[in-house]
Amino acid sequence: MSSKDRLIYLPLGGAGEIGMNAYVYGYGPADQERLIVVDLGVTFPDMDTTPGVDLIMADTAWLAENAGRIDAIFITHAHEDHVGALGHLWPQLKAPVYARAFTAAIATLKMEEKGNPLDVIKVVKPRPEVVEAGPFRVQFVPLSHSIPESSALIIDSPAGRIVHTGDFKLDGTPIVGEPFNPNEWHDIANEGEGVKVLTCDSTNVFAPLPGRSEATLAEPLAELIAGLDGMVVATTFASNVARLKTLAAAGRAAGRSVCMLGRAMKKMITAAVETGVLTDFPPIIQPEEAVEVSRQNLMLIVTGSQGERRAASAQLARGKYLGLEMKEGDTFLFSSKTIPGNERGVIRVMNAFSEMGVDVVDDRGGLYHVSGHANRPDLEAVHDLLRPKILLPMHGEHRHLREHCKIGISKGIAAELATNGTMVDLTGDEPEIVEYIEAGRTYLDGAVLIGAMDGVVRDRIRMGLNGHVLATLILDEDDQPLGEVWVETMGLPELTKNNQPLVDLIEADLNEYFDKAADKVLRDDDKVEEAVKRIVRQVAMEEIGKKPEVTVVTSRLVAE
Amino acid sequence: MSSKDRLIYLPLGGAGEIGMNAYVYGYGPADQERLIVVDLGVTFPDMDTTPGVDLIMADTAWLAENAGRIDAIFITHAHEDHVGALGHLWPQLKAPVYARAFTAAIATLKMEEKGNPLDVIKVVKPRPEVVEAGPFRVQFVPLSHSIPESSALIIDSPAGRIVHTGDFKLDGTPIVGEPFNPNEWHDIANEGEGVKVLTCDSTNVFAPLPGRSEATLAEPLAELIAGLDGMVVATTFASNVARLKTLAAAGRAAGRSVCMLGRAMKKMITAAVETGVLTDFPPIIQPEEAVEVSRQNLMLIVTGSQGERRAASAQLARGKYLGLEMKEGDTFLFSSKTIPGNERGVIRVMNAFSEMGVDVVDDRGGLYHVSGHANRPDLEAVHDLLRPKILLPMHGEHRHLREHCKIGISKGIAAELATNGTMVDLTGDEPEIVEYIEAGRTYLDGAVLIGAMDGVVRDRIRMGLNGHVLATLILDEDDQPLGEVWVETMGLPELTKNNQPLVDLIEADLNEYFDKAADKVLRDDDKVEEAVKRIVRQVAMEEIGKKPEVTVVTSRLVAE
Repeated sequence: MSSKDRLIYLPLGGAGEIGMNAYVYGYGPADQERLIVVDLGVTFPDMDTTPGVDLIMADTAWLAENAGRIDAIFITHAHEDHVGALGHLWPQLKAPVYARAFTAAIATLKMEEKGNPLDVIKVVKPRPEVVEAGPFRVQFVPLSHSIPESSALIIDSPAGRIVHTGDFKLDGTPIVGEPFNPNEWHDIANEGEGVKVLTCDSTNVFAPLPGRSEATLAEPLAELIAGLDGMVVATTFASNVARLKTLAAAGRAAGRSVCMLGRAMKKMITAAVETGVLTDFPPIIQPEEAVEVSRQNLMLIVTGSQGERRAASAQLARGKYLGLEMKEGDTFLFSSKTIPGNERGVIRVMNAFSEMGVDVVDDRGGLYHVSGHANRPDLEAVHDLLRPKILLPMHGEHRHLREHCKIGISKGIAAELATNGTMVDLTGDEPEIVEYIEAGRTYLDGAVLIGAMDGVVRDRIRMGLNGHVLATLILDEDDQPLGEVWVETMGLPELTKNNQPLVDLIEADLNEYFDKAADKVLRDDDKVEEAVKRIVRQVAMEEIGKKPEVTVVTSRLVAE
Repeated sequence: MSSKDRLIYLPLGGAGEIGMNAYVYGYGPADQERLIVVDLGVTFPDMDTTPGVDLIMADTAWLAENAGRIDAIFITHAHEDHVGALGHLWPQLKAPVYARAFTAAIATLKMEEKGNPLDVIKVVKPRPEVVEAGPFRVQFVPLSHSIPESSALIIDSPAGRIVHTGDFKLDGTPIVGEPFNPNEWHDIANEGEGVKVLTCDSTNVFAPLPGRSEATLAEPLAELIAGLDGMVVATTFASNVARLKTLAAAGRAAGRSVCMLGRAMKKMITAAVETGVLTDFPPIIQPEEAVEVSRQNLMLIVTGSQGERRAASAQLARGKYLGLEMKEGDTFLFSSKTIPGNERGVIRVMNAFSEMGVDVVDDRGGLYHVSGHANRPDLEAVHDLLRPKILLPMHGEHRHLREHCKIGISKGIAAELATNGTMVDLTGDEPEIVEYIEAGRTYLDGAVLIGAMDGVVRDRIRMGLNGHVLATLILDEDDQPLGEVWVETMGLPELTKNNQPLVDLIEADLNEYFDKAADKVLRDDDKVEEAVKRIVRQVAMEEIGKKPEVTVVTSRLVAE
């Protein structure tokens, strides 16, 4: 460790939001640190802020500029908000990708979809296996979560040990995957000089009670399903392989054939079986067999716990899907929670089932779902177990990070609230903010990556809110209007508040203006555009009470 | 009661949704019944389904067609979802409007805003005062809710007694307004032939525990506020006058001056004081005085419990507002619940406060807010008290109405799930659906009322999702292209996935097409438009992976 070397942390996504995780660590001389990237996730668009966008990911401009310094990308687990951007962003980074077997299988699919090389993905076994990445030595340590093989990373640097938890809970009986192993974590805390930095999941910091094990769900789910008549359809997160197993087992125990609907779910099960993390999964039947089974002997497990319009749950809520249809007397079970922001979609599905006479059961009573994230007491237990010098709360909105900092500080740990773009120097005993990097968002929009600040989505929101007026004007060789101005509208009422045609009123005012317009206006495209926009907005405001977006097309005929 | 007369119920809003309440009762010969309307409310737009819309209300086409048959409009209480559409829709109905004093004061403001006559509003005292409206005799009976003077209506018709609850809870200690009076309700249930029909609020049918009284909040709120340093800012629903009083009293008890921010709140307080429903309200100071008060001696009560962008809470979350500013060490209290669908806005405000170092307290622990609606056990108590022959669940999504029906049926009551537009004959012992009326939604869009199915908002959503391409083509006197096709885009990326300018690629393909286009296409505007749209979408799909909306303007020069 040279006296000029430093250890840095730079979150680019996930610190100040839940989703889109992307964290950077570096070690070396300032601005020449060798870098590793932990996770490359996505977050999902909504109509309010990102209409028409397909996926949202971290702005990796800084990483791309410094791509030559990146020694490795590590993926902690296979959730979309940790691996979903890999295929899209890898071409800018071009570093080897390290993950455990199941995560690597999903990462491979992501790379394949975008035509990236697959041999850069390296499968790593849990500690004691070590990945050497520049100045870092990295180990994967199993921690349970709501997807198989979620892992913390032990990142050893010349400046000390970092524990990067990824997403986790403390679960001694996780159904699928390794239970929480306090002995191993005791070793991790006590090896060498112990843990210098804990970079820690903050999602559930406001949940006051200790987390519950995945295993606690088996009995309530089995009891519920055993007591139901009619067809049973259950939904949960597609990647929650343990839950899928528990649900399928509960169905089988109730004498039901189990059928799975939804591509995402099948992809996860396939990856889990192929990589050996899932064994003893109850037999499942295909939809074409399921249609032959009587309703009281059938259970479907389907995608769409968040009310997603294209998922199997929403398809069933709209009617027949793959030959299967819900009816009066059937039951639909949400073995899931609704992620804030998805309420409207979930409620839409619930009401559609209600209209069919289907009973809907959700987790209101706390019996049919457990979270995959550590609650406040569990976070405190991890602090106490690892006794880090520095705490860096991650994966949370600002309020989660702030609350998590407060806990750390109350225990005498130097906690730093570092949001996306904040570069922190971790070399000394106290974290020190050294730089702010431009850290925005990148949108996948159709097939194109665009910047959040490019104005494209802002224009779409404006058209969506205000409507769009198109005015076309032809000027002849002498810069005089040829014929009248032509107006079309989209997304605006045809008739005004006084029942006049809006287009006619706008055209009348525009033509009146251009009949008398000065030559210096008519010669100047910018002045023409400005005048048209002003008149259109003025008429619209008076007549319909709205200020629409306006596009002006001025065509000039050229003397031949 | 002639043998041909019938008693009908027709919900036009609120039955199949929470919000936009509008119910019709009629009595008389079929299709000539005399009508009364109960409530004319609004619901609020969202970006997903109604971008740019200002307010949403029931489609009153049927009522307008039958306006000559309407004898009265009754408003149960002054919440926006019960009175908000009155000013907009009254001109179509033109009937007298009956309400209690406080509700009438708010209704008057609604009528005034739209320039409607004010003398049609009639102030009614609670039972035993009776309003004679055609064949109906109507009484207002106080029931507590989260706004003063909420009332049930006792609607007596020749075919029997209807109890229309409005929104209510059973509260013996409501802080403001009359406590629940079981004796009076006992009388109502036992007069004459008792209650034939109960039309009943269903909002909280899924809440399993008995409702809590408004009075239970005084102590926890006082304790919380007494224990805080720094400035305290509390928000709740502007119309919850009882809560405002409790909050202000808690602030005063803690030695704080209290200041109120937000027009909606002031409007409610003024109406409540002027109509005598609010007395002993603690003294409040103005913002210009508040800036002089030290932080630990100041409490603000502000609008914006749902994270509304323009409300006082959101203004404070963005910085200084009316000279007042929140700082590290201050506390912001949500004495409210987040209405499903508003989560994103509320979370945005919470995180903005977190960034300022402000502590946010919400009702997570159930200490600082109570609902204004009857929970399941309270609904059952009302069923048992009134013993109606027929139950009509109202004010709920489909799932709420269905659950409420189930409760009624389990008690041997004939319950009918009648959603908006379902006309029910209540003359006999069993309800009977007799007709379905077209019952959509009307949007206030700027200054214009438009129908939900007019396509205006659909076009806005499409532009918001897909972007908009405008293609302009000039054809000369011989139907030949004059110059090149001109393309503009809005809400689309400038560069394609291969970094080519999108507009250039579209123009190139269009010009190539029109160079060779057949005369029969060039002569026909529809064929030209069709060809342009096809080519634009094809190029866009290939180059940016999106199918934009396309508007084509074809200008034809005419031989002079």
